[in-house]
Formats: sequence, C-alpha cells, structure tokens
Amino acid sequence: MLARSLASFTRASRRCFSTEGPFEHRAVSAEVIAELKALYGDRVSTAASVREHHGTDESYHTPSPPDVVVYADSTEEVSKILQIASASKTPVIPFGAGSSLEGHISALHGGISLDLTNMKSVISVEQENMSCRVQCGVTRLQLESELRATGLFFPVDPGADATLGGMVATNASGTTTVRYGNMKSNVLGLTAVMADGKIIKTGSKARKSSAGYDLTRLFIGSEGTLAVVTEVELRLQGVPEAQKIAVCSFPTIQDAVDTCTVIMQMGIPVARMEFMDHKAIEATNSYSKLNNIVSPCLVIEMNGTPEEIEHHTATVQALAEEYSVQRMSWAATEEDRKELLKARHSAWYATMNLVPGSRALSTDVCVPISNLTQVIVDTQADLEASNLVGTIVGHVGDGNFHVMLPFLPEDEPAVRAFSDRLVERALAADGTCTGEHGIGSGKIKYLRMEHGDSVDVMRTIKQALDPHNILNPSKLF
Amino acid sequence: MLARSLASFTRASRRCFSTEGPFEHRAVSAEVIAELKALYGDRVSTAASVREHHGTDESYHTPSPPDVVVYADSTEEVSKILQIASASKTPVIPFGAGSSLEGHISALHGGISLDLTNMKSVISVEQENMSCRVQCGVTRLQLESELRATGLFFPVDPGADATLGGMVATNASGTTTVRYGNMKSNVLGLTAVMADGKIIKTGSKARKSSAGYDLTRLFIGSEGTLAVVTEVELRLQGVPEAQKIAVCSFPTIQDAVDTCTVIMQMGIPVARMEFMDHKAIEATNSYSKLNNIVSPCLVIEMNGTPEEIEHHTATVQALAEEYSVQRMSWAATEEDRKELLKARHSAWYATMNLVPGSRALSTDVCVPISNLTQVIVDTQADLEASNLVGTIVGHVGDGNFHVMLPFLPEDEPAVRAFSDRLVERALAADGTCTGEHGIGSGKIKYLRMEHGDSVDVMRTIKQALDPHNILNPSKLF
Repeated sequence: MLARSLASFTRASRRCFSTEGPFEHRAVSAEVIAELKALYGDRVSTAASVREHHGTDESYHTPSPPDVVVYADSTEEVSKILQIASASKTPVIPFGAGSSLEGHISALHGGISLDLTNMKSVISVEQENMSCRVQCGVTRLQLESELRATGLFFPVDPGADATLGGMVATNASGTTTVRYGNMKSNVLGLTAVMADGKIIKTGSKARKSSAGYDLTRLFIGSEGTLAVVTEVELRLQGVPEAQKIAVCSFPTIQDAVDTCTVIMQMGIPVARMEFMDHKAIEATNSYSKLNNIVSPCLVIEMNGTPEEIEHHTATVQALAEEYSVQRMSWAATEEDRKELLKARHSAWYATMNLVPGSRALSTDVCVPISNLTQVIVDTQADLEASNLVGTIVGHVGDGNFHVMLPFLPEDEPAVRAFSDRLVERALAADGTCTGEHGIGSGKIKYLRMEHGDSVDVMRTIKQALDPHNILNPSKLF
Repeated sequence: MLARSLASFTRASRRCFSTEGPFEHRAVSAEVIAELKALYGDRVSTAASVREHHGTDESYHTPSPPDVVVYADSTEEVSKILQIASASKTPVIPFGAGSSLEGHISALHGGISLDLTNMKSVISVEQENMSCRVQCGVTRLQLESELRATGLFFPVDPGADATLGGMVATNASGTTTVRYGNMKSNVLGLTAVMADGKIIKTGSKARKSSAGYDLTRLFIGSEGTLAVVTEVELRLQGVPEAQKIAVCSFPTIQDAVDTCTVIMQMGIPVARMEFMDHKAIEATNSYSKLNNIVSPCLVIEMNGTPEEIEHHTATVQALAEEYSVQRMSWAATEEDRKELLKARHSAWYATMNLVPGSRALSTDVCVPISNLTQVIVDTQADLEASNLVGTIVGHVGDGNFHVMLPFLPEDEPAVRAFSDRLVERALAADGTCTGEHGIGSGKIKYLRMEHGDSVDVMRTIKQALDPHNILNPSKLF
C-alpha cells in the first residue's frame, strides 16, 4: 500500500517546473519513509492534500509538493530526521506558516517537508532582561498574546501571522522596523540543527558579543538552506506609554515621499512610517469600507510618553504642511487608531480583490532614503504606462516599498518584465532587490545581479555546511 | 643583503611563543619578498623596528613580529598581495592602528603584516542618505573631523583612535552603543578581498536587505580571518540638538548598577551609561587631577531636544534618588561636560599608572542586564579577595564591563586565574566572554567554553573560505 501510493505521487511530481525549472526529482525512498513512520507514526503523512498544502505558499509561484510531510515535536527529533535525510541525501524543506512570498517552501526536488508547527512553546520569558526564548513554531500573534501581561512586546511585524522560525529564515521586518529594526536587530541567539543533525547554540542572552563568527546573523535570512532553526532568543521592548497615529494625504507621490524623507533625515523617532498610493487607498476604501481621501498618503505613528509625542507631532505637522499636506487625520481613540491602520493592513487582500481570480506578485525593493522619491515616482510612471493593475505600499521610512500586482495568467510576462525593470531601477539607485521577503526560488537571478561574485562566496559557505545539498535545495542559488 | 637580513630575522622569530604557543614558523620566502619589493618598492620593509611595531598591540600579550611589512595603497594591491600569499601559502595579518587587545595583530607564524594605514580616504559622504563610504585605514577621529561640517556623526567610539577596518574586524562598540548600537548595527556594506585575492562587495546603501547570506555581518567580528576588509559603508546619525551629562555617585556598587538596570528596563533612551567603581574614581582623580567623590558612580548622558532631555533627566534623577544617590553633578557647560567625561576616558591609563612598569589585562565580559548587578558585585568581591590591583569600568547599559588589571610579571598567573573565574561567572550568567574586544589569540579557550560545538561550524566556514589558512592564522581557533 505504501509502495503503491509512493509510486503514484512520485510519478505525479516527477517533473515539477518552477521559475527556474525543471528540477531533478530526488524522490524520498520507501525505506526512508518506512523509517520515519516507524519513529513518528501518524506524524508522517504522504496524503496528497497534506503534501499539496506543504508545497504551496502565498505567492504566485507554481506549487511543488514534497513527497512526504513529517511533523517534528522537538529539536532532538529535527536532529534525527536530518541524520536520516543526510544519510540518504534526501532534500528537507522546513515549513512554518507557509506565508513566504518567493516559493521558499516549494519542494522543487521533492523530499521531506519538515513541519515545525507543533513546536510552539514559549520556553521562557525573562522580564528583567527584556528577552524571551521561543520554539520556532510559535507564531507572531501567539507570542503577542502570551506577552500581553508582561508590559513587553516583540516588535517585528511582517503582517502575516508567520512563525518566528520563518521570520528568522527570511530576516523578516515590517511596519515598525523603522523604529525597532528587523529580525537581525531583535534576535539574540538561536538553537539550530545542522545538515548532519548536529545541534548547536548560537549567541547568548547578552545584548552584544564579539565572540567568534556571527552564526546567528548568518542563519537569519538563510532561508533554511544552512540549518534548521528550532529555538529563537528574542529581544523584547517595553510597551510605550502612549501611541498616536495619523493618516496624512498629499496631492502627489513626490510630496508624500519627500515628507517621509525629511522626517527620517531629521531623526524624528517615528514608530511607523507607511506609504500608500492613491490606488491602494481606492482599493482599501472599497474593500474595508473606509473613507480615506483618494490620494497618496503617509500613515505615521509616534510612540513614547505623551510629552514626547506632542513634541514630535508638532514637528511632523509643520513638515507635512511644508509639503502641501491636504489632510492629517489623527486618531483620537484606540478604536480610531485601529480603523486608520486597517487601510494599511488590508492592502494585500484589497489589491487581490481588484482582479477576481488572480494570483499576485509583490515586489520588495529597498533603496537609500535619498533616492526613494525618484524611484517611487519612476515606478508609478512605469506602472501607469504598462497598463497593469497594481498598488504601491511600503515601509518608506526604511526605503522599502512593494508594488502589489494581481494578474491573470495572460499578464504574467508583462508583470515579470515590470518586476525586472523595478529591480534594475533599485539596483541602479544603490538598493537591494529584497528588503524583507528574501530570494527563495523567485529572485535567484536578481541575487546575482545585485551581489555578483559575492554569490560565489555564499555558495562556498552553503557547500561547506551542507555538502549533500539537502537543506532547501534550489533556493537562493 | 636581502638574503642575510632575512636569515637573521627568521632565526630571531623562529620560535615565537604566545598564549597557546609554540607555533610553527611559516617564514616568508626570499622569492615572495623579492616579488613584493619589485611591485611595491620601499613600501615593503623587513627592518626590525618596523616588524617589531607591527607585531605589538596594546595588550599584555607577548609581541610576535611578522617577517615583512607591506603598505598597501588600494584594494587592487591588497588583492595582488593576497594572490601572492595564497600561491605561496604565506600568512597575512591585516594591520590598522594596532590598538586591539587580544593579540590580534601578532604574527604567531611569521608572515606578512599587511599595513592598511595608507588607505585613509573618506570616499564619499551622502548627507541625504546619512551614510558615507571610507577606506579601511580611516581612523575614528579622522572621520569625526571630516564629518564635522555635515551635522552628522559616526556613533561607534571604542575609546582608542582605531581604524574603521580594525573596528569592523573586532565588531567594536563603546560608550554610545547603548543608544546607537555596535558596528553590526552601523555598517551597511563592505568591500572585502578574499584569501585568493577575489574582490567582492557586500551589502548596499539600503537600510535593510534580505538578499542572501549576510556576509557583511559574517565579516564584522571575524578578526581578519575570513577576508581583508578594504572599504566600509557606514550609517551616520544626526548630531543631537542638545546633550546633558551627569556623574552620579552611589554608596555601593549594588545601588549604582541597580539604578542602571532599572533605567534600561524603563527604556529611557540614554546616550551613555557608564559605570566606574571607587578604585577607578580614585585612580582617575589622581591621574587627571579630578575631584569626583570616591565611590561607585554612573556617568549618564542624555541627548535629543532640550524638552526631551529635561523630561528624561527628571525621571533619571527620581530613580537615582530611590537608590540613595549621594551626588549628581550635572555639567552646566560644554567644558564641564568634557571634564566629566575625562574620568571615564582616562581610566585605562590612570589604571596602568597604579602599578609603574606594568603590563595590563582588560577583561571584557557582557551579561544579561538582569544578572549584571550580581556579576559585578561578585567580581568586585573576587578582586578584593585576590589582592590584585584593578579597577572596574564599563558600558553597563549594555551589560558590558571591564576589569583593568595592571600587573608585574610575577602576578601574571593570579591575573589569568582571576580572568578565568570572571569568564566562568559571566557564562554561568548567560553572558559572553567578550562584549567588544574579540577573541584574538588570548581568548581561544573561552570561545570553546562559550560556544561548544558551534566553534566547529565556525571552523568549517574558515576552512572553506581560506583553505590554506593564510588569513591571520591561529586567531579565534
């Protein structure tokens, strides 16, 4: 029975194509599946629906299911599974929430999807050190809820309810990164399992260290290609005494982004600095029943003591007026605040909704602040000229923005060409092809465009740490 | 002539002993020296005094001179020199200001000291992006001076007038790290030359990126063992509108450090948070003719707008009073401010002065904030009990502190035993053996104590990127 089902799905997935495919299928042997089942029983699944789910992320990439899914309960189990995979040269693709956007969890060569969502304990919270340690399967919202009573919070918010392990994998960031930094700024250490099953600990609970190579930050953003991260030590922040948020509408994109740039250059410690173009406002007004002015806007949040907020609010207001701000709607209550944030948070689904039945590509460039206005203005002009449907939103305080492009199959070539031009524009402006989504399988050619010969150095490290190329193969390279 | 001088110094340095020695001498061949001289003329030196200088840092470690010193003028020259070294398997030790503290620049196996101090151009300053690019030989004070007219500054200040390349090598930090972070937080990208001479660029001018492995942060803190860094892209900060500083004297170490801890836990954005014990105050009073109260103290600096400073000053004052502060001397003028900082800045030389003719060891542990008071109190008790001369100073806002121990040769075993106990205490408290000085040759055994099997992963990376072990050999491992 096992042999038959194995044969049927192996046939089905033998020729899985993707962005850069076709890929050689490295099927999981019946012996390996039998060994896994003997160890983990019904936590091993070859059911088509389970495999399908584990090969599908939230992106436009063609799904590519694994041969088998294993649910690990502990670091030791991850170690054992990697030993088995290593001995049999079987690919292993770590799986968290499946919310990545560049085909990260696709099993391009088949193999084992290592589902880590059972590992969802908050292991310890050290209030006095403002840190906590979590298993990799803990999700962002779960952590938020478990920390609620402590007066502390973890600031990295990529929007999706990703797992902390997944956020490590892509070096996630989000709306509050302008104030608190991305994963690299907020992770103190890791427990990681190497390709051969060796368990190591990186970092410590100290806030800084110069003890050896920074494996913590090497693994952050390595997209499951160097090690499987099973525990994460996080730095926490105190919940601010007060928060104040405004939606500021401007006549042009230039005015909006210039206002952002000057606020950043003055070093005003905003807690959020988000941009939305008029199409994004239009889409979210319709999707979330909002009444924002249909024009480019900034969503600006300040936090701190009431005195600090008052002081900085006055400065921001004066600056926005210099750039012809049309309206600044300040939230008066917590309810108002949530209402104002709703526009930004619903942008993805509101944009998808513009083209029924579409898939969507989200670009992710990040450029130096000084070049941001020009890059966004040029991108908007390109979007208009290309006749594609798309909205522009972004964490502009960091120089990072997304064009969300919902498309039907016939428009895929035009969407990809638009994305190519945007990346070229960003690299010409000394930026990067990805501020927070990562490379996955979707941006491999951009990685080479951006980093040239550095990519060979990265590959050398990959080759040294994972000589059989079992960890998430054909991602990044 | 060349052959004779070569033979004489080779004999002299054949058996160079150090902390973990003896080391095999891998002498630079006469052919290699001839090739270097043909290319770089009088920028190649085998003079004893030059070699001696390049094998000596500011630490207690036994100097170990290189066989030859080469002054490189450009990234391309560094590349050429590494090609020559790689072909002949000759060790290369990058050299900046020579201010490192753990034997980093000792030529333990002989080889080429690659002096990078000629590479001292500030290549570009982008005021609007708040960034600049410098060659590796630019020093901290030179950069400060060149940025003066821009309203921007580079915040990492390790005390010594180190080169930016050296600060990258050890992941330097210092008194303002509590506010602005260490080198890892303030470097955007690098130009680096690999062991085989290949030149690569890492990072970009964007504030964040998820494009591939973070080679920038892998090289920061790698102590010249993975690549020679020749250019550094730095993130700059706006000069604050105002600054205010106080020396706060407390009856006990516990009161002082507890005050620090609670200020950090409340998230008050101090710009400096330094601790000095009563012995450090005594030493600096005498050395710099100051009149600070001889008791444990915190040096606290705030910066920002005058309103912010007033607000936070009131909070800090109230907290310090809860912990029985004896006196808070606030600087009224810029002159006063410099006078108050003088105590902290002169601590190293004031301490050396306590034991005429001494060498000195500076410890460098960093522990979680929540364990800081206990670790410092226990360390002070250990210092008293051991009858050693020493002062305790530190960047306590980060949990990092130094015991500076001037000693005569006969006390070296006792000093080393004290250092061992301190590191064990810090590791037991979930800390690190080095917050900012690095491992060099002096802390190799501590690296293994702290990171266990992770060290093997680090070695694998070293082996992959520098297969002939030519880059700063016998450092870190």
